[in-house]
Amino acid sequence: MKLASLKQGGRDGTLVLVDRKLERAMTVPEIASTLQAALENWETLAPRLEAVYGDLNAKPDLGFALDVTELASPLPRAYQWLDGSAYLSHVERVRRARGAELPQGLLTDPLMYQGGSDGFPGPRDPIAVREEAWGVDLEAEVAIVTDDVPMGVAADTATNHIKLLMLVNDVSLRELIPAELAKGFGFVQGKPASAFSPVAVTPDELGPAWRDGRVHLPLVSHLNGQENGCPDAGPDMQFNFPALIVHAAKTRALGAGTIIGSGTVSNVDSAKGVSCLVEKRVVEILEQGRAVTPFLRYGDRVGIEMFDANGFSIFGAIEQEVTPCPS
Amino acid sequence: MKLASLKQGGRDGTLVLVDRKLERAMTVPEIASTLQAALENWETLAPRLEAVYGDLNAKPDLGFALDVTELASPLPRAYQWLDGSAYLSHVERVRRARGAELPQGLLTDPLMYQGGSDGFPGPRDPIAVREEAWGVDLEAEVAIVTDDVPMGVAADTATNHIKLLMLVNDVSLRELIPAELAKGFGFVQGKPASAFSPVAVTPDELGPAWRDGRVHLPLVSHLNGQENGCPDAGPDMQFNFPALIVHAAKTRALGAGTIIGSGTVSNVDSAKGVSCLVEKRVVEILEQGRAVTPFLRYGDRVGIEMFDANGFSIFGAIEQEVTPCPS
Repeated sequence: MKLASLKQGGRDGTLVLVDRKLERAMTVPEIASTLQAALENWETLAPRLEAVYGDLNAKPDLGFALDVTELASPLPRAYQWLDGSAYLSHVERVRRARGAELPQGLLTDPLMYQGGSDGFPGPRDPIAVREEAWGVDLEAEVAIVTDDVPMGVAADTATNHIKLLMLVNDVSLRELIPAELAKGFGFVQGKPASAFSPVAVTPDELGPAWRDGRVHLPLVSHLNGQENGCPDAGPDMQFNFPALIVHAAKTRALGAGTIIGSGTVSNVDSAKGVSCLVEKRVVEILEQGRAVTPFLRYGDRVGIEMFDANGFSIFGAIEQEVTPCPS
Repeated sequence: MKLASLKQGGRDGTLVLVDRKLERAMTVPEIASTLQAALENWETLAPRLEAVYGDLNAKPDLGFALDVTELASPLPRAYQWLDGSAYLSHVERVRRARGAELPQGLLTDPLMYQGGSDGFPGPRDPIAVREEAWGVDLEAEVAIVTDDVPMGVAADTATNHIKLLMLVNDVSLRELIPAELAKGFGFVQGKPASAFSPVAVTPDELGPAWRDGRVHLPLVSHLNGQENGCPDAGPDMQFNFPALIVHAAKTRALGAGTIIGSGTVSNVDSAKGVSCLVEKRVVEILEQGRAVTPFLRYGDRVGIEMFDANGFSIFGAIEQEVTPCPS
C-alpha cells in the first residue's frame, strides 16, 4: 500500500492512496482524512485502506492523475521525528571531517537525536536557508513510521510496530553543527526541516528487499542531475529498525505517527558513492588529498530515490532546490 | 485567560476555559475543540475565548466544578517541545555534578534541546519509570507556547508570538544522562515525558510579574510535602523567552503550538532553594561535604506551583508520584 498527502485540506493535508506505479491517487474521506488519523487507528483502518488500494491498482479508471508537486510530506507535521545514525561508516567519516572523537559504545549503543517535527516541506518544496554560508548538505536516509509503541518494547515485538517506510532528506547545516554539538544538547539550529518522499509505503511493498529489519536496496542520491551515490541501505546498517525502536522506547512510550530515521545511508566501501556531501569531501581528502565538492549553494538541486529490482521507483523522488529563505 | 484540556475527547483532549480562581471550567465547542486548534487560529479565536472567559469569571453559575485529576496536559501532545537552559546557575551546578565542562559561549548562546512531544502525562498523572536506579529527578520550569513563528524572527517581534505560559516538570534520568550526552546528540533516553501545569494562561494573567520577557515570581517545588525550593524565576534568567524564540527560529520556522521551556529555574544565591535534586545535591556537597538527598524513588511525590502576589495559584499545581512503568 502506498499513501501520500495532498497539500490541500489544512496543516495535515488530505490523505490519498497512490497506485503502485505512482500514476494515480484517490482520496479516502470515508476511511481517514489524514495519514495521522489513519496511523492512530491503524489496526481497524488498514484493512479498509488495503481494499481500496487493491481496487485502485486493478481499475485504471479509478482516481486522478498524481501530480507530485501537489503533495505535502506524507505526514506534513508529526508529533515525533527521531533520527538514528545506524551506518557507522557515515559516523566515522563525518566525525573525521569535523575532528571529533568517535563515541564510546559505537557498535552497541545507537546514536539517535530528537529532531524538529512541527512542519516538513513537501517532497518538491525548496530547501529554504537564510545563509548560504551555513554549509547546506543533504543526507539521504530511510525512515519508518510507527503506531503506538509501549515503553520498554522488546526487539522481537518492535518489528510489528513498523507500519510505513519513507525516504528522507535530513538537511544539515555543516558550519553550524560543530559549535552546536559541542554544547552537548544535540541539534536545534544545525538541522532545519527534513523532507520526506512523496509516498509512504507499507513494508510488503518492498517484497524480499524488506528483511531482518532493513531495506536491502540501493538509495540513489543526485546533485544537479549527477549521481552522488547509490550505496546499499541493507548490509552496513549496524542497528536495524527494530533496534532503533527499542532504543527510542527505553524510557518512554512512542505515540502513533512517530517517525524514526536510519541515519545517512553509507557503505564501508565508498565505491558506490555516498549519501551526503560531507562524506564525499572526506573521501576526496583521502583519495585526492583535498575536498573539491563544495556544500550546496542557492540554485543547487538534490534528488533522492529508491528503485526496486525491476527499476520502478518505490517511493517517488524527493527533488529539492536550495533557495534563500522567503522574507 | 486560563485554558486547560479535559482528558475526555481523544488524544488531544477537550479544550476548556477555566475561571481565574481555578474553581470552574466550561467547554467551548463552538469556538475550538482542542487547544492546538485554538493556537492554529489564535488571532481570530482568542477574542471569542476572552469574551467567554469574561462571562465565566463574572457569573458563578457558569461552567462545572473543576476536577484537576480529570485534566490532561494543556497540550496532551504537541508538534514541538524545545527546552532552553536559561538559568546559568543550574547549568553550572549540574555540570559540576557530572564533572562536565561548561560550554563555551555560555553567556551569549543559549543551551536548548529538542524534547519528545508525542505525549505528555496529565498534571496529576504518575511519573512512570521502568528502573528506579536510573536516578529520577524533577526539574521545575516555566514554559511558553507560541503561534506560528517565521524563520529568522527578530527579538522585538518574537515577544508577540508568546500566546500562553505554563509550568513544567521536565523529568530527568540522571544516571542515564552523562553517557547519553557524551555521544553528542542530546537527550532521547535521559528525558522521559515532561508534565505541564493544569492550566496554561495568557501573559496578561501574570500582571506586572510578566515583564522583559520573564516571569518575576517564585517557582515553588515540593518533595513529599516538604518545600524543595522557591527560587525567583525572573532575575537570573540569562536569556529571556523572546531570546529563546530567536534562538529556536534561527534556521527554521516554528509551528503553532510550539512549547519552549526556560530550563530549570535557579538562582545564583541558593538561599531560596533549588528546583531539582541534582542541584540540591551539589549545594549539599559544597555546604556539608557530601550529598544527602537521594534521587526520587517509587512512591515519592513532587509538586510544582507558582503563586501571585496575593497568594493565589496561577497555573494550578503539578503533583506527580513516581511509579513503576505499567507492564
